[in-house]
Parts: sequence; C-alpha cells; structure tokens
Amino acid sequence: MAAEWDAEGRAAARPLLTDYYQATMALGYWRAGRALDPAEFELFFRRCPFGGSFALAAGLRDCMRFLRTFRLLDADVQFLASMLPPDTDPAFFKHLRALDCSGVPLLQVSGPLLLVQLLETPLLCLVSYASLVATNAARLRLIAGPDKRLLELGLRRAQGPDGGLTASTYSYLGGFDSSSNVLAGQLRGVPMAGTLAHSFITSFSGNEVPPDPMLAPAAGKGPRVDLVASVNLWLERVCAHLGLGLQEPHLGEQAAFVAYALAFPRAFQGLLDTYSVRRSGLPNFLAVALALGELGYRAVGVRLDSGDLLQQAQEIRRVFRTTATQFQVPWLEAVPIAVSNNIDEEELARLAQEGSEVNVIGIGTSVVTCPQQPSLGCVYKLVSVGGQPRMKLTEDPEKQTLPGSKAAFRLLGSDGSLLMDLLQLAEEPPPQAGQELRVWPRGAQEPCTVRPAQVEPLLRLWLRLGELCEPLPSLSESRAFAQQSLSRLSPAHRRLQSPAVYQVALSEKLRALVDSLSAGGLL
Amino acid sequence: MAAEWDAEGRAAARPLLTDYYQATMALGYWRAGRALDPAEFELFFRRCPFGGSFALAAGLRDCMRFLRTFRLLDADVQFLASMLPPDTDPAFFKHLRALDCSGVPLLQVSGPLLLVQLLETPLLCLVSYASLVATNAARLRLIAGPDKRLLELGLRRAQGPDGGLTASTYSYLGGFDSSSNVLAGQLRGVPMAGTLAHSFITSFSGNEVPPDPMLAPAAGKGPRVDLVASVNLWLERVCAHLGLGLQEPHLGEQAAFVAYALAFPRAFQGLLDTYSVRRSGLPNFLAVALALGELGYRAVGVRLDSGDLLQQAQEIRRVFRTTATQFQVPWLEAVPIAVSNNIDEEELARLAQEGSEVNVIGIGTSVVTCPQQPSLGCVYKLVSVGGQPRMKLTEDPEKQTLPGSKAAFRLLGSDGSLLMDLLQLAEEPPPQAGQELRVWPRGAQEPCTVRPAQVEPLLRLWLRLGELCEPLPSLSESRAFAQQSLSRLSPAHRRLQSPAVYQVALSEKLRALVDSLSAGGLL
Repeated sequence: MAAEWDAEGRAAARPLLTDYYQATMALGYWRAGRALDPAEFELFFRRCPFGGSFALAAGLRDCMRFLRTFRLLDADVQFLASMLPPDTDPAFFKHLRALDCSGVPLLQVSGPLLLVQLLETPLLCLVSYASLVATNAARLRLIAGPDKRLLELGLRRAQGPDGGLTASTYSYLGGFDSSSNVLAGQLRGVPMAGTLAHSFITSFSGNEVPPDPMLAPAAGKGPRVDLVASVNLWLERVCAHLGLGLQEPHLGEQAAFVAYALAFPRAFQGLLDTYSVRRSGLPNFLAVALALGELGYRAVGVRLDSGDLLQQAQEIRRVFRTTATQFQVPWLEAVPIAVSNNIDEEELARLAQEGSEVNVIGIGTSVVTCPQQPSLGCVYKLVSVGGQPRMKLTEDPEKQTLPGSKAAFRLLGSDGSLLMDLLQLAEEPPPQAGQELRVWPRGAQEPCTVRPAQVEPLLRLWLRLGELCEPLPSLSESRAFAQQSLSRLSPAHRRLQSPAVYQVALSEKLRALVDSLSAGGLL
Repeated sequence: MAAEWDAEGRAAARPLLTDYYQATMALGYWRAGRALDPAEFELFFRRCPFGGSFALAAGLRDCMRFLRTFRLLDADVQFLASMLPPDTDPAFFKHLRALDCSGVPLLQVSGPLLLVQLLETPLLCLVSYASLVATNAARLRLIAGPDKRLLELGLRRAQGPDGGLTASTYSYLGGFDSSSNVLAGQLRGVPMAGTLAHSFITSFSGNEVPPDPMLAPAAGKGPRVDLVASVNLWLERVCAHLGLGLQEPHLGEQAAFVAYALAFPRAFQGLLDTYSVRRSGLPNFLAVALALGELGYRAVGVRLDSGDLLQQAQEIRRVFRTTATQFQVPWLEAVPIAVSNNIDEEELARLAQEGSEVNVIGIGTSVVTCPQQPSLGCVYKLVSVGGQPRMKLTEDPEKQTLPGSKAAFRLLGSDGSLLMDLLQLAEEPPPQAGQELRVWPRGAQEPCTVRPAQVEPLLRLWLRLGELCEPLPSLSESRAFAQQSLSRLSPAHRRLQSPAVYQVALSEKLRALVDSLSAGGLL
C-alpha cells in the first residue's frame, strides 16, 4: 500500500480513480490491436471561470506525482477483471498490470493510446478544481488589494478531506496569505493561522480557577504577576473609560480570554462577539491586552464573526484610539482587526474599501466552493493518433475540438503588454519577434495581422519517459509566479466584471487544418 | 503510515486535517487545567439545503472510521510543537500524543473538553459535504421518478480525488443507481457504469484493420462470423431504410463501433453524437446492433451527449421502432437511450416528463458541485461542559445555539404521518405515545399541544469508549433507509419548490433553559 502514498504523506490519485468507460475503452483499443498506437491528448478549458478573462492553471505537482507513480496493482487489475467480460483475453490484463508512464514524454499527454486514454479522468480531477480555486483566490486577492491579509478557512465546507487539502493549497497559490488547515501546513508548507472559536469562550463560566495565574514579563526579567488580578484591575479602568457598568462584561468570556492569554501571551487574540461586542467582548479584550501590555506583551488582534463587520471595525478602531490615548499605550491603536462570516466577493469589496479599518479577512465557503461557478469544465481531448490529427466534429460547434499536436505562444508588444496567445501546429516554426504574422482570432471570420515585439513559448516539457525534466517549482514559487503573471495582464483584462476578452488566435496552418477536417468530416 | 489508511484502502481524515485554532484552543484548555473537563458538542445544520424541507444526514461510516483511528503521531505532535510557543509545557505534547477516542461515548460527541474540541473540523468536513451531496442526489431522484436510471459521472468535476470518491459514494446513498467512478466501485461497492467517450470514436479513421474481426454467436454454437463484413452489409440495408447515402455514415465511427462491439459483444453501446446523430451515429449504431443481433447479442443502449436530448431521444425511438418493424427485430424498439451533458434540475424535469423516451440519465457537475448551494453550513457547537449547559448568546439571533445535552424524537400521527421532531433535554423522560405534550415550535411565540400516536427516538448510540455498539449499515442498507425515510415525508414536505416547513419543536424544559440562559447572559 505504501507505494500509493507519496512522500508528502498524501493520497495520490490512484489509477482506478477514473471513470469506468476508460477501462472499457482500454479493452476496446486492445481488442482492435491499437493499444500501442502513439496518441496525444490535450487538457484544456473553453472559457475562463467566473465571467473573467483569466484563469490560473494549477495542479502541475499533483499531476506529476500521479503520472510518475501510475501503476495498476494486482488488486486493481483483479477488480477490473471481475467487472469486464469473463472471456476477456488474459493478455489484456497482463498489459494493464505492466503499464506505467515511463513512455509519456509531454504534459500535452502523448503516449500509447490505451495508456493516455486511461489518464483522462484523474488528470481532469487533479487540474480542474485546483485551477478553479486558484483562480477564485486570485480574484478575491484582486478585490482585497495587496495590503489586506487573506486567510482561507474553508476546510469544513470542502468536499471531504482531500477537497479541503486541495482548496487550502491552491487558494494559497492563488494569492491568499495563510490557511486554517493544519494538514496543508504540515504537508504543503502553507502558512497557518488560527486562535480561538466561540466554543472556547462558552466553555468558561467564570467560576474556573486557573491552576497557575502567574505570568512572567515578556523580557523575562522581573517578578511574575497574577494575570487574573491584573485583568480585574484593568477591567475597572476600561469600564470607567467606556462608560460601562463593571457587571456588563461576561465573566466566562473574561476567564476564557485570560486562559488564552496565559497560554499565548505573545499571540493573544480576542474573539469579540460571543456575547456582546461593545458591552463585553471589547472591554474584556482591552483589559487583558492592557494587563499583558504592562508585562511587555502586545496583543496580536481581535476577531469578529457576526454582524456588520465594516461598521463594527470602525467602531472598534475608534475605541482602540481613545483607549490608547487614555492609557498612553500607542501600540493599541494599530492592533489588527480580523473579520469572518460568509464573506463573498461583494462583501469583500465593501471590507476592502478606502478607509476600512479591517486588516485580516477570513474566507471559507466562498473561496472553497466557488459558488459563482463551482466547476471549471476542463476537458481532455484526443488531438492526434498514429501521427494523424483528430477532431471531434459534433453538430454542437461549442464542443468541437482543435486538431493536431500543437504549440502555444504568448505574443507581447514592445512595451511588454500582452497582445494575444497563439496556437499553432507543433510542426510549424515558432513565431519570431518582429515578424508580421497572419493569424485567425478565435471566433473571427477574417484573419488579422500582428507583429509581436516579443514571443514567449507557453508550454514546458516537465516529464519525458517518466522522468522529470527539471525540478518542480515549490508552492511558494508557483504562488509568486501566479501573482507576477496576473500583474502583466492589462487592467481591462484583469477587471473582474465585464472584462475585455483576452484574444487567442490560430495560425493559418492550424486554421486550414480545422477547415479541411470540418469539411471532410461532415461530407 | 499504514495506520492512517483504513481497511477500505482509503485515506481516513487525519487528526491534523483540522483548523489551527483547534490546536491553539487545546493549549488554552490545557493551560487552564480544563483539558479533561467532561464536555459535549453537537453537530447540526440550521437550514435544509436547496430551499427544501428535508436533508439526508450522511457520513456516519467516515466519522466512525475517523474516531476509531484518531491518534496524533509523533510527527504530528512535533509539527504542532514547531508551530506553538517554544516554551509550551512538554506535558501538553505528551497529552496530545496519548489522545484517542476510547473515551468518547456518543455521536453527540461527549468526552474530555480538549479532545472533543479537536474533533470539530474533521467531523464537520466528513458530515457536511456527504449530507449535502446525498440530499442533492435525493432531490434529483425525486425529480427523475423511480424508473429512470440515474448515473453519477462527476469525478472530474469534484474537488480533487477524495471529493470525487465522497461524491460518488453519497450520491449513490441519496438515490442514484450507479457511478462512473471505478474507485468507488472498488472501495465502496457502488455499482459502476460506463462504455465509451468521443475520444474512442475520433481515434479511429476507418483505415484500421482489426486483428481479429471474427465473432462467435452468443450461444457459443455455430461458425464465427466476420463482424466487419456483416456490419457493412447491414449498413447498406439501414441506409436504404433511412434514406441516407451510403457515404454519409462516418467510417471512423463505424470502425470504432465495430471495435467496441468486438470487445463487448454482450454490452455494446453506441455514442451517437461525435459527428452527426442522424446521418452517422444512428445508422452506424443500427448496423452494428443488427449485425450483433444476428449472432444473438442484444445492444445495451445508445448515448447522446449534446443537443436537445429530449427531442433527439424521441426521434431515435421513432427510428428504433420503424427499423424494428422493417427488419423484424422487436427487441430493438426497447434499446435504452442514455443522455448526458450538463443536466440540472430543470433539464432533468424535462427529460423525466411523461412520454419521454429517455431511459438513463448521466449527471456530473450538478450532482457533485451542488451549484444551487455548494455547502451545507453544518456547525459543531459546545452544548455542555462540566455537566453545565452552554449557549452561544451572540447578538445575531441566527447564530444562537440550543444549550444542554439533548435527546431527539420523531412524533407520528395515528396514520404514520410525521407530525414534527421534538428536541428535549437528555435528562427528561422520553415522550410517550398517546400522551399530550406541550411543546414550543421553533420560531413560534406560543406553545402548542400535540398528541403523537407513535414516538421514535432519533439518536442512536454508535460508538462508546472507542468501540462500535452495533455493526455499521452497509452503503446499500443506508441507501434503502434513506429512500424509505423520504417516502414517509408528506408530499407537501417532499416538494422541492416552496415546500411546507417541517416542524421542529422544543420541550418546555429546553425552552425554559434557553430563556434563562438568554436572560442571564445578556444582563
């Protein structure tokens, strides 16, 4: 079993994580003597998600891991044998048992027909959601702007354990700063964040006696102080300053804050809305933060999880300022305010507006489930077999495919701006910078000319004959690459609502091939 | 590592598949001397999904597996130690290392405070999506009616590998008949279905020569027949009957159908829409099906994946009928017609309407991603600690919780109809059949009385002190239980649009506890 789990301790996709028709087609190819025909598939999507003009393609590492370890075990082959016709040639199962991807040279997946067909579903499964959630995270980052800290906390809303791990990994790649998911921290190195939930607060009634209420100063020198007593003194002063009765702040909440502060004096955060933010959460937080402050510790923040988050943040910041002045503790003014609670794109825009006092934004459901469009619709289509281009010529033009083994290039203007992406046949010479090209923008009836000042190839060779051609980027390298790529898009393309369409064009040869196959196929 | 994967070969949720604040709160409880306080959490949701009045609660098996194997490994504890403050008491980490769930007696999770807090996120992750997708599948089943075969094929649209496995498992539980997902078949026993994709068809040009075109009759007796030659003869007769030119059916498609028929003579299905349904897919299918028929084999179906599915199915059935008459093959009339292609609730209703000729419906994206509501919003709330009830008293009434350890009962009328569900405190005696009860429907300002003819307890004890109390139901048993439970709902509650609200009521004692804690907490 060990072989099925990778060095990151994660369940890799397994060969049988696939649609059954891949297995029946494999037998069909075998019976037709075509299992080893050289074939090429392309994985792509037809439309950028969420009505936008960009998508981040993600999942490379997962795909490489899957391809490098692809092998059907005896139990897998036996299971398939139990489902397929009983008189199936035993040599077919021997063939399955011996399959591995040491013959697959390209990410545009080329290799023996039977094998590269079998790879369809798992590759789609590994790329499609990873790209969708990375793109979704990138949109949320664009809305939030560069300065807000974005925290992903959607594990409990994901499609089971691995959905959660995928979501945390790829929302970080797309531009989030951290995740609540510990496993994503342990296995993927995603920065983690988290402090306390309402249950921690409600678990305290106020009658609890901490086994050791004494806390040493942050610098380590000086006598230990009874934090409970100190907080009680501070609470009187805070209530007087805020015009609150001393009985208003909830005793259980106060005990919970003290307990948390004793465990995390250097990382105290208050969750303010278990009872009443203004009359309980805020004064209790201030009392604990000020008592810690006397010992040289700085509270790291407050969190709100209900109500009008923007308006409460303004009010809390105002109280921080008056309290900082009142007690001459200037650091209190800048204590970060974190918010969460069903934040979607619209609410995020509100929280990120000019003058907002919110510093940290936690998003769960709407980053993980991508409610605006919960699937990307990637497809994996046969483009060539036996060296001959193939095309799906359905009557639904939307579902037609582009035939032939292809190369892809990004064409740039002299100012580095992106002009368009160009698809051409792999056999064509790459376009040259400065050269005038006649190309066919997708959907256009007429060709146009373009003279790129720079040309960048878009496809990279990652895996050849089962071996990595170069080291995979780390997750944080991929994250930086994604942000850098997005920054090159023009504002019109980066815009989230009604963006300009980013042009993808076909070379004349590719266009001619499409035309000739369309005509032939529909005779 | 082996211990982390269960007997079904599946990655169980791991203890660190959790939000980081569970770990920081654990340290907080520890530091406050409260790690072992007896505590109870409840996992619930506030509103039925999709605007309906019911939900299937699913995920029991996954939760039991998680709880029974819950144990932090050395590497897990070391990882947490690297993230938590460096001066953390080493005894805390020893405590973590020794934790297991052999002290957890109830599904309403009771146990030591620190431990049951740590269980929050993984349990939410295991229950929430499973219940959502099971409920979604149940809705689709209700729309389709009992006779259509429903096939789940959403693996490629799921949130990574495990999202796909969860989706296939629980859409079967919710009422689907089968799944395309082979791993769900292998690990969970979900019936599998699948035949061929467009890529199989487009991989054939028509120039291929099958290594062995000979096929023996189904009964095994009699000479083998050259299927290629027989199909060619039949194609002439079919084209003449349909008024098509013999050059119209695509040769590659014909070769693909023959290849598939040679591999699966007993399970031949034609995918009709790669080129043109009417002029190519249908005549090619008929030629192969009739050639197979001569040998005693019956084609198992056709599939459509584009265009107007309902209208094409009517047309195909019409052609089946005339062809059956023409060639005196009555079985052809009833060949099942399967359809797929972004089918949602609305399109499903259309396909399931009276007189529809569609027999099998494949649904991917919209069962797996639950686009109408992509998360269920389950929560896990502390209801009791140290024997004292706990309640979250936020200013947002929507987020308040019901305090105290509870029991739940379903109250039925004398005709077996469901009257309401009743929540009461665990310490109260269970309601008796025939007894008049004064209860408080949720949201109502006044109590009402109800006299149930039957009373069914809703909670079952599954796990006590780490041991299963009774064998878990099999997946197909759970599926039958779900369908039986749904059949007991009145039509008004089962209705998918604007259903009657199913009433949940509180006992007088529970209601009084809510009132007294609300008053106390908001002093």
